[in-house]
Amino acid sequence: MRPARPQRSCREAGSTVRMRRVAIVGSGMSAFGARAETPRELFTEAVHEALGSVDRGLALGDVEEAWVGSLGFGGAQLGNLGAYLVEQAGGPSIPARRVENACASSGFAVRDAYLAVASGAVDVALAGGLEKMTDLTPVHQRYWLGVSGDTAWERLAGATFPGVYAMIARRHMHEYGTTREHLASVAVKNHAHGAKNPKAQFRREITLEKALSAPTVAAPLTVLDCCSTTDGGSAMILASEARARALTDTPVWIEASAAATDHLALHDRASLTTLAATERAGRAAFERAGLGPRDVHVAEVHDCFTIAEILAMEDLGFAKKGEGGPLVASGATRLGNDLVVNASGGLKAKGHPLGATGAAQVHELFLQLRGAAGPRQRAGAEVGLAHNVGGSGATCAVHVLRRG
Amino acid sequence: MRPARPQRSCREAGSTVRMRRVAIVGSGMSAFGARAETPRELFTEAVHEALGSVDRGLALGDVEEAWVGSLGFGGAQLGNLGAYLVEQAGGPSIPARRVENACASSGFAVRDAYLAVASGAVDVALAGGLEKMTDLTPVHQRYWLGVSGDTAWERLAGATFPGVYAMIARRHMHEYGTTREHLASVAVKNHAHGAKNPKAQFRREITLEKALSAPTVAAPLTVLDCCSTTDGGSAMILASEARARALTDTPVWIEASAAATDHLALHDRASLTTLAATERAGRAAFERAGLGPRDVHVAEVHDCFTIAEILAMEDLGFAKKGEGGPLVASGATRLGNDLVVNASGGLKAKGHPLGATGAAQVHELFLQLRGAAGPRQRAGAEVGLAHNVGGSGATCAVHVLRRG
Repeated sequence: MRPARPQRSCREAGSTVRMRRVAIVGSGMSAFGARAETPRELFTEAVHEALGSVDRGLALGDVEEAWVGSLGFGGAQLGNLGAYLVEQAGGPSIPARRVENACASSGFAVRDAYLAVASGAVDVALAGGLEKMTDLTPVHQRYWLGVSGDTAWERLAGATFPGVYAMIARRHMHEYGTTREHLASVAVKNHAHGAKNPKAQFRREITLEKALSAPTVAAPLTVLDCCSTTDGGSAMILASEARARALTDTPVWIEASAAATDHLALHDRASLTTLAATERAGRAAFERAGLGPRDVHVAEVHDCFTIAEILAMEDLGFAKKGEGGPLVASGATRLGNDLVVNASGGLKAKGHPLGATGAAQVHELFLQLRGAAGPRQRAGAEVGLAHNVGGSGATCAVHVLRRG
Repeated sequence: MRPARPQRSCREAGSTVRMRRVAIVGSGMSAFGARAETPRELFTEAVHEALGSVDRGLALGDVEEAWVGSLGFGGAQLGNLGAYLVEQAGGPSIPARRVENACASSGFAVRDAYLAVASGAVDVALAGGLEKMTDLTPVHQRYWLGVSGDTAWERLAGATFPGVYAMIARRHMHEYGTTREHLASVAVKNHAHGAKNPKAQFRREITLEKALSAPTVAAPLTVLDCCSTTDGGSAMILASEARARALTDTPVWIEASAAATDHLALHDRASLTTLAATERAGRAAFERAGLGPRDVHVAEVHDCFTIAEILAMEDLGFAKKGEGGPLVASGATRLGNDLVVNASGGLKAKGHPLGATGAAQVHELFLQLRGAAGPRQRAGAEVGLAHNVGGSGATCAVHVLRRG
């Protein structure tokens, strides 16, 4: 691995700009699952854990501005939701907004908070996310999930998310020989990891046989190829270099933040089996960090369906196109290896409260890079990557982090 | 007026950080009103006008990232709405997200795009907003408006926005002697301005008598004290100093961007007659710009109800508390005076497509500061202020602009 670079710089449009460094100094998440608590309680739980994790302490009043990712699932307090959640967490005078990019909402909230600190406008920022999904009836859940995919050509034609990802999986099988076993091995690994995460929604291992014989949702995807309906909140504190050094001896640096988009509807895309937004965001993030896939010790990737983790392995450069399935099935990305993927359990086992997921991925990296991930710790983890996708690949945020 | 300062700097948390300067180099908006077009067509109309207004031309492909404000009214494409609108405008590979802060959504979108350019991460950014409101039934309109106020204590108790602002107006009348004539004079002025704006929803003057005798919506507010239901889109191009100088000879500089929040529910606030978020954001913006209320030539303030413009006059420092009504009624903020308020017609006459409003306010300033506002031009305008409020004052974004 190349040595850490002391200064961030960013080449764009022909000019090199020196950006301020930004660190994560605290992070938290609620337990994920079917939670009886209200949205504000779940978000507050995450915020208070984040504040409590700052080595030398931080009060919510020290936070200068906030970005909260949420799809606003259910819509009880849909408008001004960001300000509402921050108010209810105890910070009514912290400027806040909601960031929405479907399931990538809080990946983009982290990016926007990062940009604000990097700009010099604020020194201490809050980024997080929230979704409360289990209160709704299945019909309403389908509606709120559906509105994140393409509406005109997919949702209104009846294509749900499992259906869309099933089409992607079918095509990947056709083009590259990916098998049901490859898909199932993603679920088996992530459940094994989730079993070691006390905040995961599903804390139990599953066998390959069980995954393969589970009821079909949309062929070839079974219920164990799909992430679940989850409630949860996530939050973290970002700080400028000077504030980070004052607040903690264990900062986690954001080495790079990158974002990309693609067409919402599958039929508009260049390929069914490559998520171009992931490819572009991953490449940009590695370039800005001066790192590559082989430098990464822990990756949290967007496994909303098992096929999605296989795509992520390929599109982020961890495997060649078509070799994502065999890579996961080989066990090379399980705990105990150089690269551990979805040590948290991923969306599959940790759960996927849409707007909370992006920041929760970064939260896992924060724990891993501080050596605080307990039984799921990747020993000596120094570099982490978080990969958050919205819709069926339309939006993507990638962050590369490094232990301070 | 004090001379322009060549460099932005920002004192926060005890340290002075030099921020990159950011200019608006192009701006556009769709005509506002009951439009037959789809959401994507309205947003595209604004984006193309913005690109076309860049002196030396700009292609959408030159935009590096985008922030789109919308409440997502109606929800046909609720998730990934930012990416969808930018895709449909012709930029499927421009990283985009939706920013939601109720009616302050695109004020915050402008702020977040500003922070991104100021950070050095991007040199050319798109900020805008969109709302398509007139397709919905009145019941659904009430729901989508209602979700932006406090839900637990106000919406579910039956308090609609007119009701909430009526309570504020009543209390303002009680405390300061504000009259129905003061309120009506806001509507008369803004309709007079709107009559000169070819893109305004209502392009006709009204008399004080007509305003006073209009049907009551929530006493003391009549239908002519309330803004309307509107469709519309807005968009602008922000650029770093180097890119701005290359793209245009007439940049409009963002001298300051500030944001603030307050409790969502009225009963939690320190006062019914002061919007604390406006007060804080206004003060911060003036301080960062090194300017004060007397330096402003054109102000676009958030007049969702006539009482709201009176509050804005006071809370932004244009009038002492309690003197906002007499100030407007005196005619001192009409076209032809030193300070012109809501030359565009304001939300009242120009229309208020929620998520599009904040950026549309900045658009009016862009025209005014370039001397391109036609019959509603404030001659020699050099400094402008945009004031965008979400909910009944819970969120606020203020921008101070200056002619280049």
